[in-house]
Amino acid sequence: MFYIIGLGLSDEKDITLRGLQAVKNSTRVYLEAYTSILMIEKDRLEAFYEKSLILADRDMVETQSDEILRNADVEDICLLVVGDPFGATTHTDIILRARALKIPVRVIHNASIMNAMGACGLQLYNFGQTVSLVFFTETWKPDSFYDRIKENVGLGMHTLVLLDIKVKEQSEENLARGRKIYEPPRYMSIPTAVSQIIETEESRQENVLNPDTTLAIALSRVGGGEEERIIAGTLRELLAHSADAYGQPLHSLVIVGKRLHHLEVDYAEEFAINRETWRNIAKDVYKCALE
Amino acid sequence: MFYIIGLGLSDEKDITLRGLQAVKNSTRVYLEAYTSILMIEKDRLEAFYEKSLILADRDMVETQSDEILRNADVEDICLLVVGDPFGATTHTDIILRARALKIPVRVIHNASIMNAMGACGLQLYNFGQTVSLVFFTETWKPDSFYDRIKENVGLGMHTLVLLDIKVKEQSEENLARGRKIYEPPRYMSIPTAVSQIIETEESRQENVLNPDTTLAIALSRVGGGEEERIIAGTLRELLAHSADAYGQPLHSLVIVGKRLHHLEVDYAEEFAINRETWRNIAKDVYKCALE
Repeated sequence: MFYIIGLGLSDEKDITLRGLQAVKNSTRVYLEAYTSILMIEKDRLEAFYEKSLILADRDMVETQSDEILRNADVEDICLLVVGDPFGATTHTDIILRARALKIPVRVIHNASIMNAMGACGLQLYNFGQTVSLVFFTETWKPDSFYDRIKENVGLGMHTLVLLDIKVKEQSEENLARGRKIYEPPRYMSIPTAVSQIIETEESRQENVLNPDTTLAIALSRVGGGEEERIIAGTLRELLAHSADAYGQPLHSLVIVGKRLHHLEVDYAEEFAINRETWRNIAKDVYKCALE
Repeated sequence: MFYIIGLGLSDEKDITLRGLQAVKNSTRVYLEAYTSILMIEKDRLEAFYEKSLILADRDMVETQSDEILRNADVEDICLLVVGDPFGATTHTDIILRARALKIPVRVIHNASIMNAMGACGLQLYNFGQTVSLVFFTETWKPDSFYDRIKENVGLGMHTLVLLDIKVKEQSEENLARGRKIYEPPRYMSIPTAVSQIIETEESRQENVLNPDTTLAIALSRVGGGEEERIIAGTLRELLAHSADAYGQPLHSLVIVGKRLHHLEVDYAEEFAINRETWRNIAKDVYKCALE
């Protein structure tokens, strides 16, 4: 059996009992490298599972799937991924390959940002499509995310914005020279994300977002206990807020849609940089029926 | 500390290690009654946790929250819920009440249908808002879900349709006489859902859905291992399919949006009632670039 096992959001204790059992019974255990780079260290997982783990970067999962799947028809093999196996990064290719090889596959689900974002107090069923925001450079500022947010905003839906992660990046020089030397990983922070979003609004000028009256909620390390941060405010307030306040990566951002319920406002008020502007904008701009 | 702990999708082994630890350390453990009615039996959980559980129905969670929260400032108390604490049923009220009482709250996340629906092979980020479908009666056929699906369809987004659950329902006679006698629980099945959706399209006639060319994917007991069923086809095919094939409740339905990627089509083809119609409609009606 080939298992793809979600590790959940934070550390080694977020695996499910079902997941742990599969790990214990497996002859080879792969850890998707994103995972270890992000929140959970490989050593700590190995000690906890009493198993050695084989690191598998994205390339390996995509191009060497036959090696990962080797003998999975007769042994249990598992691939550990952060969040849920069907989160932002999907594992469609390797599952299709397993099917072609007639290897049975079992997915063990877990929390991912795609449902844990509910921690910000907004109702999950009022979220529209999810968008991804990549790092802008001087010459490359892809803004298709703006069109997607516009669609959600038009319907009054909330939008989850996933922020860029750069791992195994090569500098232009190293790339040109074919040197496999990688830059340190980079994770987009809330201030960078908000400033890119405001920059895009300023260049597109389609009045989708207004820095002073669009509400948003910053999420960091959701499910990470003491490390979790949830901070709410206008885009301008989030940008002006102390960068340190957002804590360690990963960060995500939620753009609040107009279809806003007063309980959502009450719940998220706890996270507001300025409770008064939070409530006033909800009432006056979002037309939310607050007491 | 007051813990709200997601139990995940299927049985007692879907709790996370972090969740189990909190259960073990708690002096009182409440089980939201929906949970036990659905997938996991109370006795089985009690044996597994070596703890007795207090059943809490929806009413109790909403109106007797102070009893649930009693002493949670000095002891650990937990409330177990199916899926994730911020799933379709939210726990906003009890968390707001805990805050008012200055009781620290910790949420332990888990998988819910809101992210595990990725098992059908469609990308989570292309889902629009989620809709709920309630049982129609002769005189009451609420169709606001149709407007929501129309909005998603207009943008090419996929739609998760959550199907009605009726628990603790009273017959009209028992209600009139004030007798607290409840009908057996009812769960909407895929054939009922699809027939209500087609009925609504026929009465509204806004060409949002076409029984013969709208693709949909039925999900039953996602994450439930051998009990999981995923079946794909046109609305008409799903309706004509053997009702038994969908297995035990809970069922959910995904309406496939036009923004469809060929990998999504390939992945879900495995689940198709008729692979040929699945691919042909994806190609000809959805204009998906298949080989």
